[in-house]
Amino acid sequence: MPTIDPDRVMGDLRRMAEFGRYKTGVHRPTYSNDDMAARHWLAGRMADAGLEPEIDGIGNVIGRGQGRGPRVLTGSHTESQNHAGWLDGPLGVIYGLEAARAIGADPAFAGMVVDVGAWADEEGHFGHFMGSRSFCGELAEAEIDAAEDRTRGTRMRDALAEAGLAGRPRAPLDPQRYLAYVEAHIEQGDWLEASGLGVGIVTSIVGIWQFQATFEGVQNHAGTTRMAVRKDAGVALARLCCDIERRFPEVAGERSVWTTGRITLFPGAPSIIPGRAEMLFQIRDADPETLLRLERSLFELAAAADEAGPCRVSVQALRKSTPAVMDARVQAALEGAAERHAPGRHTRMPSGAGHDAQVFAKHMPAGMLFVPSIGGISHHWSEDTSEADILTGAQVFVSAVADLLATAS
Amino acid sequence: MPTIDPDRVMGDLRRMAEFGRYKTGVHRPTYSNDDMAARHWLAGRMADAGLEPEIDGIGNVIGRGQGRGPRVLTGSHTESQNHAGWLDGPLGVIYGLEAARAIGADPAFAGMVVDVGAWADEEGHFGHFMGSRSFCGELAEAEIDAAEDRTRGTRMRDALAEAGLAGRPRAPLDPQRYLAYVEAHIEQGDWLEASGLGVGIVTSIVGIWQFQATFEGVQNHAGTTRMAVRKDAGVALARLCCDIERRFPEVAGERSVWTTGRITLFPGAPSIIPGRAEMLFQIRDADPETLLRLERSLFELAAAADEAGPCRVSVQALRKSTPAVMDARVQAALEGAAERHAPGRHTRMPSGAGHDAQVFAKHMPAGMLFVPSIGGISHHWSEDTSEADILTGAQVFVSAVADLLATAS
Repeated sequence: MPTIDPDRVMGDLRRMAEFGRYKTGVHRPTYSNDDMAARHWLAGRMADAGLEPEIDGIGNVIGRGQGRGPRVLTGSHTESQNHAGWLDGPLGVIYGLEAARAIGADPAFAGMVVDVGAWADEEGHFGHFMGSRSFCGELAEAEIDAAEDRTRGTRMRDALAEAGLAGRPRAPLDPQRYLAYVEAHIEQGDWLEASGLGVGIVTSIVGIWQFQATFEGVQNHAGTTRMAVRKDAGVALARLCCDIERRFPEVAGERSVWTTGRITLFPGAPSIIPGRAEMLFQIRDADPETLLRLERSLFELAAAADEAGPCRVSVQALRKSTPAVMDARVQAALEGAAERHAPGRHTRMPSGAGHDAQVFAKHMPAGMLFVPSIGGISHHWSEDTSEADILTGAQVFVSAVADLLATAS
Repeated sequence: MPTIDPDRVMGDLRRMAEFGRYKTGVHRPTYSNDDMAARHWLAGRMADAGLEPEIDGIGNVIGRGQGRGPRVLTGSHTESQNHAGWLDGPLGVIYGLEAARAIGADPAFAGMVVDVGAWADEEGHFGHFMGSRSFCGELAEAEIDAAEDRTRGTRMRDALAEAGLAGRPRAPLDPQRYLAYVEAHIEQGDWLEASGLGVGIVTSIVGIWQFQATFEGVQNHAGTTRMAVRKDAGVALARLCCDIERRFPEVAGERSVWTTGRITLFPGAPSIIPGRAEMLFQIRDADPETLLRLERSLFELAAAADEAGPCRVSVQALRKSTPAVMDARVQAALEGAAERHAPGRHTRMPSGAGHDAQVFAKHMPAGMLFVPSIGGISHHWSEDTSEADILTGAQVFVSAVADLLATAS
């Protein structure tokens, strides 16, 4: 059975973390110099592994293996959030590369192929799964034309040109080529750690429903306007927040989460009653019925607040992604491998975060493996996973990919 | 008895509104070109009225009358909030000027003096009652050195130099010179209008107590962090807002007001649980006991929230001004004049907004007269008062000042 080389796995992850190092993490936004250097280094490592590397017109790094047998696609991403962790993304890419190397080195798997992809901008500096959507044929040129870096405001076209990618063709997926897409990732939550487990087998990736609630009152002087006649949009907003916190636990699923990420009062001055207020509100769940139930509650609470007055309250849906169910056969392969290498230390669980696998799941069977995040921390430079968990996860991943290939051959 | 010239009063107010006209209001921030032009025009009108005008080193425009009899100081301000109303400030200055003219023209008042001041920056572009505090000896040079325009960030020293005021001495008050300080102003609220009245006699100016509440939670991923383990600073903030709205009406006075003017969640992104949140909160009341009671409630609610967790909640007082009680004799003079010129159409009331009179009240007897604000609107270009109310108020003001002078002579 294909076996990982622990030093090779840890060495590649540590080398990758040198690109854009920031404290114990990395700062490697999409198409930055450090990000592009990491992509070129990765392409070299793919070539070392006998894969044919390509960096395409959106920055996807794709390593294709030779062979006429069954093929599995693996991958994740290599850019980071700003000032974030070293494993968020690279873990899955290096696991895929190790699978290509370990399986390629095992004569029992001759002719079978593991391709590896690093999908550009999963972290959303410019948009929404730009790399994997490009690969899957879901990204129009016009969307690239319009995209800008959310931190720096750089136009995506300019960033691509600066990165030396302008004019390159964007590589297309041939879904017939693959049995499945398999991705590994850090959990980013504390479920595995809190449960004392080492491996998560993802059952589905949550849908993310994003809303803006708007409160219209009357702006006025905070000293001369009596409480009885005020229409304070900020107070209306706080009340809806409290209503949500009271009502949602009654209608939520076991793993539902909801978050008010941003609140803005207008004009936002100490002596002026806010005439307008806005909040960004998000719901996540893996179950479409639960999402609908929570959305219905949100609209009911807003309508009741609007009716009660004195402010007008309205809610608008900004974005609604569909939950992605992971393929049963891929889940079974991951669970079988987990039981061999981490017996009793694995669980099936939904993913609360979005991943490239949700894009691929629309085009072919897809699955995901999670390793624990220490303290549940992610999107911060202190994000980490123990070396033991990283190596256990790598072996489970490689064995599961090997099982998928072996079963198909 | 001294009688106003209605055309002169309305003409001066309308001429003043041409400086920095914006829609039906004005945009005349302190030391702007339009503001300085208005100050120079005002100095000219003071000279026309037989007063000796001075524009001092902080921009105060002071017109001093000749005569060895009793003296009353009148005034208000001439700069405006950004894109705000035409009467907020100028009304009181022109009333004072009209008092000087009408009383100066009445032989029965020979030798008696009405001085007029336009106190710079009452609207707080650079600080906190800079002009009247300068005049009353409460403003140190170091405070001017440190002050910056809150909208544009210009240093106050640079703005003074640009306005041609650098190096000029700042005029000092001689409190022995005056019987009293009397100021007229638009109400800025809807109390007079809602009560069908034309004149308000101010009993006291509210104290304004400003607080910052800070909520410390744990920033984390909005998808992967279970609700049960979250420490969401934004939710903690909303809960305190709701607690305040529930509790304060039980302990407030009849005219207490409280306002959350600004809310900030950090980092303020749609998919990140806020790890920190801040709110600016303000309480106003004319009664020191009531202010203390409300402050105590605020601290109790914050302490209870901190104790209940999961976030740390703390409240810090930023600024606490003392309520200013208006002088009984000045109130009586205003009420007597109001009963003559607007019988049954006046009331005693506190001021919910701050005014220069609260600075003068620490140094001499002070009083204020209010005229109605249409719709209670102020700090907006649509602010207005009917011509009938403006002229009634002017006559009441002039008669009250005359009565104070006559009683003292």
